[in-house]
Amino acid sequence: VSLRYKKNVIKISSLNGTTGESMSLSVEERKKLAEEWCKRGHGKLEQVIVHVGSMSVKESKELARHAAEIGVDGIAVISPSFFKPKTAGALRTFLQEVASAAPNLPFYFYHLPAFTGVNIPARDVLEGIEQLIPSFRGVKFSGNDLMDFGLCASYSQPSWSLLYGVDEQLLSALVIGANGAVGSTYNYVGCHIKNLMSAFENGDLVQAKAIQFKLQELLKYAVQVGFDVGVNKQLMSEISGLTLGPPRLPVEPCSSAHAQSIKQKLISIFA
Amino acid sequence: VSLRYKKNVIKISSLNGTTGESMSLSVEERKKLAEEWCKRGHGKLEQVIVHVGSMSVKESKELARHAAEIGVDGIAVISPSFFKPKTAGALRTFLQEVASAAPNLPFYFYHLPAFTGVNIPARDVLEGIEQLIPSFRGVKFSGNDLMDFGLCASYSQPSWSLLYGVDEQLLSALVIGANGAVGSTYNYVGCHIKNLMSAFENGDLVQAKAIQFKLQELLKYAVQVGFDVGVNKQLMSEISGLTLGPPRLPVEPCSSAHAQSIKQKLISIFA
Amino acid sequence: VSLRYKKNVIKISSLNGTTGESMSLSVEERKKLAEEWCKRGHGKLEQVIVHVGSMSVKESKELARHAAEIGVDGIAVISPSFFKPKTAGALRTFLQEVASAAPNLPFYFYHLPAFTGVNIPARDVLEGIEQLIPSFRGVKFSGNDLMDFGLCASYSQPSWSLLYGVDEQLLSALVIGANGAVGSTYNYVGCHIKNLMSAFENGDLVQAKAIQFKLQELLKYAVQVGFDVGVNKQLMSEISGLTLGPPRLPVEPCSSAHAQSIKQKLISIFA
Amino acid sequence: VSLRYKKNVIKISSLNGTTGESMSLSVEERKKLAEEWCKRGHGKLEQVIVHVGSMSVKESKELARHAAEIGVDGIAVISPSFFKPKTAGALRTFLQEVASAAPNLPFYFYHLPAFTGVNIPARDVLEGIEQLIPSFRGVKFSGNDLMDFGLCASYSQPSWSLLYGVDEQLLSALVIGANGAVGSTYNYVGCHIKNLMSAFENGDLVQAKAIQFKLQELLKYAVQVGFDVGVNKQLMSEISGLTLGPPRLPVEPCSSAHAQSIKQKLISIFA
Repeated sequence: VSLRYKKNVIKISSLNGTTGESMSLSVEERKKLAEEWCKRGHGKLEQVIVHVGSMSVKESKELARHAAEIGVDGIAVISPSFFKPKTAGALRTFLQEVASAAPNLPFYFYHLPAFTGVNIPARDVLEGIEQLIPSFRGVKFSGNDLMDFGLCASYSQPSWSLLYGVDEQLLSALVIGANGAVGSTYNYVGCHIKNLMSAFENGDLVQAKAIQFKLQELLKYAVQVGFDVGVNKQLMSEISGLTLGPPRLPVEPCSSAHAQSIKQKLISIFA
Repeated sequence: VSLRYKKNVIKISSLNGTTGESMSLSVEERKKLAEEWCKRGHGKLEQVIVHVGSMSVKESKELARHAAEIGVDGIAVISPSFFKPKTAGALRTFLQEVASAAPNLPFYFYHLPAFTGVNIPARDVLEGIEQLIPSFRGVKFSGNDLMDFGLCASYSQPSWSLLYGVDEQLLSALVIGANGAVGSTYNYVGCHIKNLMSAFENGDLVQAKAIQFKLQELLKYAVQVGFDVGVNKQLMSEISGLTLGPPRLPVEPCSSAHAQSIKQKLISIFA
Repeated sequence: VSLRYKKNVIKISSLNGTTGESMSLSVEERKKLAEEWCKRGHGKLEQVIVHVGSMSVKESKELARHAAEIGVDGIAVISPSFFKPKTAGALRTFLQEVASAAPNLPFYFYHLPAFTGVNIPARDVLEGIEQLIPSFRGVKFSGNDLMDFGLCASYSQPSWSLLYGVDEQLLSALVIGANGAVGSTYNYVGCHIKNLMSAFENGDLVQAKAIQFKLQELLKYAVQVGFDVGVNKQLMSEISGLTLGPPRLPVEPCSSAHAQSIKQKLISIFA
Repeated sequence: VSLRYKKNVIKISSLNGTTGESMSLSVEERKKLAEEWCKRGHGKLEQVIVHVGSMSVKESKELARHAAEIGVDGIAVISPSFFKPKTAGALRTFLQEVASAAPNLPFYFYHLPAFTGVNIPARDVLEGIEQLIPSFRGVKFSGNDLMDFGLCASYSQPSWSLLYGVDEQLLSALVIGANGAVGSTYNYVGCHIKNLMSAFENGDLVQAKAIQFKLQELLKYAVQVGFDVGVNKQLMSEISGLTLGPPRLPVEPCSSAHAQSIKQKLISIFA
């Protein structure tokens, strides 16, 4: 479960994604999780977006149908990564197939090459996608290639969202067309990133850069001592006080001491 | 569904693996497929090994339990590849967790780094695995690193099988300790590879090499014109005459003409 | 030979770099080229920076000494890429050794991981470098990792330059601390990039983004039809009217027609 | 400087290669080294092969001409690796250009993708090379892809040598067509590898495999504690008693203690 900020207006919850370890869950667990978020988020969250990607197009469609039934506000789909699409067209057809199971739900493509190993430019996937998927509403782009991101932005339709997902480079994406951000670290540095986005909107690039530098310093430290989905989960627990439980194999649990050392660094940097 | 040869004695069917596109199937489909193979293979196949790996350890355990219930002869597990294990220990613990759901079934680790992106040496995964998984019986090794494969072979216990899965390098693996082979091309060049293995066992390296050269020539051609799981499936259909149906997205279907051109090459090479 | 823009004040020529194919030249040719640029640029260029990196630290030192003798304004050094440094410390020591041969010349580290295969973060190379190389004056950073670039920027001393070298992402680097740009495409889109930088300095991000989008569109096209150092050289010839001669093997020459098609695209985009 | 074994008949010295750090030497140093080896090897070595590859085709030709003048027995050339050839044809043309400078010297192509980053299959480079380079006499293949190696072997002309360079997989290459071996570890395990090759020739695959397993065990240990060209050089010194001097930057020197620990492992394994 990750949080998403879009400027400082909308509170969106993007769930069953990477931070929520959805790929390690069974289909039933994913459905139940989506249901709970819809129920409990009612009146508190402005939007609930559910990730329904899966290695299996059949399961992905089942999850999309379920998402429509429980009334979420949108669905997101990542490329399958065991059998990898060989062309942009194959991936687009996969996305179209999933979208067809919930044709009235806003649909987002989730681009995460470092995890999937699928290095097809997102811009190529977008080519003509508005014809194939009328419900298409944008991209969550979690990659370093900002030429590809910029090309997505310049191709983008007015109704699309261009959400950037590499937290440590957010400012560099905002300047080239990002209009939102989704990221795992926003679960604990969200207030600072909201300030970064406000500063950017107000033209205060000095302030925006200063905040981005702080997040980079924090992540440099975290990567040096060890950082993955399990560490992130423990860190969220340590900071929020909410027990989130251990990660699921093959992600290994993180000690409280390890997470505390990152928390202390966070406090000292953002003090 | 792929076939496996072990020398010229045992006819084994290894199913729900890469060739069978198991990762694109739902859990229910995988169960049904395993059941059918057990039923129809009865009396015809000496062993049925079912792959039960999954992105989700929970689903993988469910598949392992099911495999035990329907009476298969063994299970194989690949590393999860979306969330990748960071250490050999994490992967070993994942495998142990799955094995614990079917403790009486012979257990095989399936090493396929080109698909999973998990580059942990198989030898490191094997370290002490016989203590953690008493049912451990071997490795299906589908990688190019023959030092790693040799280290698995020299570490191997007498009861283990060392099955090699890169068809085009089989002879190079036999000489360093492979005692079996599992591969997708054996579905149509199996008789030739049986001859390769017999020649090797009889010390006729000239003949073994000649056959290996032919398979290399065939695969060089296939790769040049385009070769993936979908092409392989169509090729199996064209050669066997059995309709296997189309692949599932994101794998794209292969035209009959494309597969026929590879079939003709096969015929001319092995004539 | 490439051109460099730094805001709209300084005209610098950075030579014997990637565009100039210095790695394909003999030591003598590199010396002669540097001499000619110094002679002919006198009074026209505000600065001449010579790249003196080489696979051999011995040759690199010889080139540095020569650069000092002929009176260039600074030297730049890339990591050796056949024998790759294994740690940031090893690379830093290599740079220090070269710098020691021309201790009074401003020294720049040239970070180009896509060519060198050296993936050590530039920030790690900078750690304490001001102690080891008193003449250190900055980095030319030609990589996609803008967290690493930002960390270089936040570590940067007041006297350093942070020059960015991935032309298609320049705006994203400016916002996180770049104070200059060096790139091969600036040889023909330099006037537009000067406008981009001016717009950025004046806070006109809409205009800066519009220009960046144009360069991205051009490079997308160029990559699709085929783009490398040889194509770039021919394109420079077609646009400038100056005959630059063919590239040296293993770079292959580019046809005039190929370069013309990119030139036409450039004209239509930037019209 | 590395040693080469070809079966147990010929003692060849292959110099100015990877072990000898030729890429870190100046052109003059490389010439002098080649001269000394010719002078001192006279009457002791059956063949002296000099590597003349360079980033610069011009320098490479100069080295080839020099090699012919001093009377070496052959030259070898690796692909340039800063500017990488984009096609097999570009690389073949580069090799042809170098060979033309010493048309009467036997010419070998040196394939080392892990260092060069050039992943063009060697088999593709060989296509028609006998027409372009009449002096072509074989390949030193230092890669893991034994299908590519086998395809080179099946394409090979009677006068060619197919030398394999991944020491830890030698047996797997012998079985698919290698007729010689060049490798850095043979400087200290040469006598054992000679036994491996003899065993293979005599059809004693059990013995050949046993020796190969020992070398794999040694290299697994060496890699775990740290192994590169600098460690290898120190290890050669410790074992031979000959002082070889330190490596050149960016390779870092190796402590005697580090090399001694590998030497002890070697002694215990091969005892």
